Amino acid sequence: MRPPVTSRAELERVALELFEAHGFVETTVDDIAQEAGISRRTFFRYYPSKNDVVWGEFDRLLGDLEARLDAATDDGPLLTTLRDAVVGFNSLPPEAVAAHRQRMSLILYVPALQAHSTLRYSRWREVVVRYAARRLGQPPEVMGPQLVGNVALAAALTAYGQWLAAPGSELPALLRAAFDAIDLTLPPHRPR
Amino acid sequence: MRPPVTSRAELERVALELFEAHGFVETTVDDIAQEAGISRRTFFRYYPSKNDVVWGEFDRLLGDLEARLDAATDDGPLLTTLRDAVVGFNSLPPEAVAAHRQRMSLILYVPALQAHSTLRYSRWREVVVRYAARRLGQPPEVMGPQLVGNVALAAALTAYGQWLAAPGSELPALLRAAFDAIDLTLPPHRPR
Repeated sequence: MRPPVTSRAELERVALELFEAHGFVETTVDDIAQEAGISRRTFFRYYPSKNDVVWGEFDRLLGDLEARLDAATDDGPLLTTLRDAVVGFNSLPPEAVAAHRQRMSLILYVPALQAHSTLRYSRWREVVVRYAARRLGQPPEVMGPQLVGNVALAAALTAYGQWLAAPGSELPALLRAAFDAIDLTLPPHRPR
Repeated sequence: MRPPVTSRAELERVALELFEAHGFVETTVDDIAQEAGISRRTFFRYYPSKNDVVWGEFDRLLGDLEARLDAATDDGPLLTTLRDAVVGFNSLPPEAVAAHRQRMSLILYVPALQAHSTLRYSRWREVVVRYAARRLGQPPEVMGPQLVGNVALAAALTAYGQWLAAPGSELPALLRAAFDAIDLTLPPHRPR
């Protein structure tokens, strides 16, 4: 028996260990609460659902990404600024890398998490689209900013896939390679 | 009362009408079967689930896309070949455009369909990745082909979004614009 967990981060660590050992679908909230030495009710004070544990601090991190983009100077190419912000968003201290691999592998490959992931991807993309709209001086809903959002997500997901497939590889280098392979020449916006 | 439907395509038309009128979630298989004048059992002979009706002939069309790419000459830039194949895949006779709009709007915007859509997107992407791998002379799982697959899906989804947002707009032109805005300089593959 370990002492009861007393933080969101600890609860997350316990849950990820159980998902790794027994599978995400097979692990129940009761299993997690029991292993963490807390009640089911306490679990739900930390996280609204089992899915949300996998995403951990995503909301706070998304705020960080937005702050990075708000603070960025506008001199470099748009995709370079985005690349650097996304690399920063994904730079982790060495001791956090193993858990991030575990988390991302669940997010990308567990079918039961796909629907939930789609919603989170949308929120990530919206942050990128807002930045692109500001940089391009276009409304967020038109093709230019939307294409930037979708293509940036494509680059990030490609880098994640490569990272998960190659133990020991470095996520920041893969993100840089994916973004640097892409050059966008966006259509001007012609209001109707 | 209309006469009982006698083809997959007719059943699909009836179902799409009901989804449009009452909502996708609100419409049951029984509702569709009743409106189509067939039994529930007959419905399931045409389609394994309500979700699958939305995707219609996707599997057959995906085979067409693959055949187009297999038949393509390799002289133009990779993304140009892909663009032309995807435009061909999405070129519809005028009388089919309204139903395609309805279908794509369900696929892109109904949350209940998101998980299912993710699986179909993967299959579409796999076709593109196989072509890119062949063109690049690289294994399909490495960064170059994977990036092509993800970026092509990003371009297609962007074009679909713009098309759905603007009644009367032309999907082929939007697909061309999205693909033409992207230039890829793919990293060479260095086997380890």
